[in-house]
Amino acid sequence: MDRIQAGHGSGGKLMNDMINNLIRKIFGEASVQPDDSAVLDLTSPKIAFTTDTFVITPVFFPGGDIGTLAVNGTVNDLAVMGAEPKYISCGLILEEGLPMDELKRVLESMKREADSAGVEIVTGDTKVVPAGKADKIFINTAGIGVFNDRLQRRPIEKGDAIIISGTIGDHGVAIMAERNELSFSKGLSSDCAHLNHMIAAVCQAFPEAVKFMRDATRGGVASVLNEIVEGTDFSAGLVENDLPLKDEVEGMCDILGLDPLYVANEGKVLMIVEGSKGKAVVEEMRKHAEGKDAAIIGSVTDDYPGKAFVETPIGGKRLLPLQLEEQLPRIC
Amino acid sequence: MDRIQAGHGSGGKLMNDMINNLIRKIFGEASVQPDDSAVLDLTSPKIAFTTDTFVITPVFFPGGDIGTLAVNGTVNDLAVMGAEPKYISCGLILEEGLPMDELKRVLESMKREADSAGVEIVTGDTKVVPAGKADKIFINTAGIGVFNDRLQRRPIEKGDAIIISGTIGDHGVAIMAERNELSFSKGLSSDCAHLNHMIAAVCQAFPEAVKFMRDATRGGVASVLNEIVEGTDFSAGLVENDLPLKDEVEGMCDILGLDPLYVANEGKVLMIVEGSKGKAVVEEMRKHAEGKDAAIIGSVTDDYPGKAFVETPIGGKRLLPLQLEEQLPRIC
Repeated sequence: MDRIQAGHGSGGKLMNDMINNLIRKIFGEASVQPDDSAVLDLTSPKIAFTTDTFVITPVFFPGGDIGTLAVNGTVNDLAVMGAEPKYISCGLILEEGLPMDELKRVLESMKREADSAGVEIVTGDTKVVPAGKADKIFINTAGIGVFNDRLQRRPIEKGDAIIISGTIGDHGVAIMAERNELSFSKGLSSDCAHLNHMIAAVCQAFPEAVKFMRDATRGGVASVLNEIVEGTDFSAGLVENDLPLKDEVEGMCDILGLDPLYVANEGKVLMIVEGSKGKAVVEEMRKHAEGKDAAIIGSVTDDYPGKAFVETPIGGKRLLPLQLEEQLPRIC
Repeated sequence: MDRIQAGHGSGGKLMNDMINNLIRKIFGEASVQPDDSAVLDLTSPKIAFTTDTFVITPVFFPGGDIGTLAVNGTVNDLAVMGAEPKYISCGLILEEGLPMDELKRVLESMKREADSAGVEIVTGDTKVVPAGKADKIFINTAGIGVFNDRLQRRPIEKGDAIIISGTIGDHGVAIMAERNELSFSKGLSSDCAHLNHMIAAVCQAFPEAVKFMRDATRGGVASVLNEIVEGTDFSAGLVENDLPLKDEVEGMCDILGLDPLYVANEGKVLMIVEGSKGKAVVEEMRKHAEGKDAAIIGSVTDDYPGKAFVETPIGGKRLLPLQLEEQLPRIC
């Protein structure tokens, strides 16, 4: 049986066989108990709980696939709250006819990323819909993280440093190029990565300095900045020359008319940090592979309360409003 | 804007407006914080964690809709573990063009069932795919329950009573009739319900008697029984005359050639209980609306180790093997 059939999603032998011989084998039989729920002993009753659904097309892309994205996206959502990601669920919607080896590849990606991030996939669910009623594979991952100390959230102030953990726009541009089979897209690759280890190291080294963290996914850096300053007396001012940007991403954005500040990242955290600690935090980030291009890209000001802006190389200031919608659909 | 557009799933203003003005308004602004994760203080660090995805067609059916199903299904998965369901996530996949008022109706169903079950919807995610890449609306709910006392699981023994909390086959048959617009299907209705309050009452009244619980969803009562006895020295013996079955469900099963023991329920729990406590447990169940037709339907025997069977009215015994696949696709 080399393709998914309707019966793989029903409560019979076909489904049980796939769960036991494929899914539980890959995720680990001790981790995924064949029961209605996983039973877990947490180290703390204070937790973070999140959910994310992934519908990206194409399913496989340079730098990852929907499985790496599904694990890392949820791990990062927990990590930016200051929680330690621990447990992940896996809800699959499969389109009838999906090649079994593509499913296997995606599940193996999930397991590899989970192991590397230090989270366990402990519970799951599988549904199959007829051909044409879904697009190959959709994955939901919910996640639980524990707070071993405090939540990383404090009010921002004028003079705080705005830090990004690396180059921007890599994910969205790589997906766009792959989807459109752009022949000049050599070298583009998604930045899909889990950031929990680097974030934990920064928070441990500078427990009082970090005021806010968020991964800059859909809507990019500009959208996150808007959420941070909205309703406050402060603005987020970026310096265009300081934005870490790969040449090939910059080139592709120029050609396609995209603003990299609005393009999705899948392995970048934006931090607001006490101004005096900005450089030290960047240095700590750079010790980690996922933070090697970290940089201070601006600061909190009071120039345009509630708004984000970028200072251009010739000294002008361009506002960065929340856009009506993402430039690129289905990038996660 | 009366239909879902691509932009409702992207990281811009359209999505933020829908989340803030529709989803958070319905679910409760205090419950769903606009952040990457919900931060929760549990009463115990021992938890149950589960996930379930719903792809049912049609979205609306007699007795419920995909929203009632999504909340009750996950609540029940936690309750049958002996946990107290507390928190639910909501991962939406919406097809472009979905009427906004259908989405609203589904979200309101989720909120109503969550309130009634005593769980809070605390975190969510929304994705939109182009028309033809999904089927109206798919919902994933993950859930967290806490164990305030012990897990309801003990080895089964010969003489244990097999109890079902009410009539069987209602959900699957109602969906089948609705989907096929069968004109003679009057009176059929899904049994979709949350069972946590009744289950908690039974477990509190008989803390030592309950050995195993599971909601008999996909694959029906027969599939659950197979899972319980598989690999043990015991068999599950049902008495056909004792199965609670609505006349209209029996009639529809006869016409369509369905075995109600394999038809999905969405509001029925199967319990294995110490034989001497069987009647008392049924009496306790009957105090609750969702358990008013509860009955002892058989007992644990050692006639056919590892197998389930049913004794027919004329005294014969028919084995109930795990079927290759569910008779009815996409019923949840």
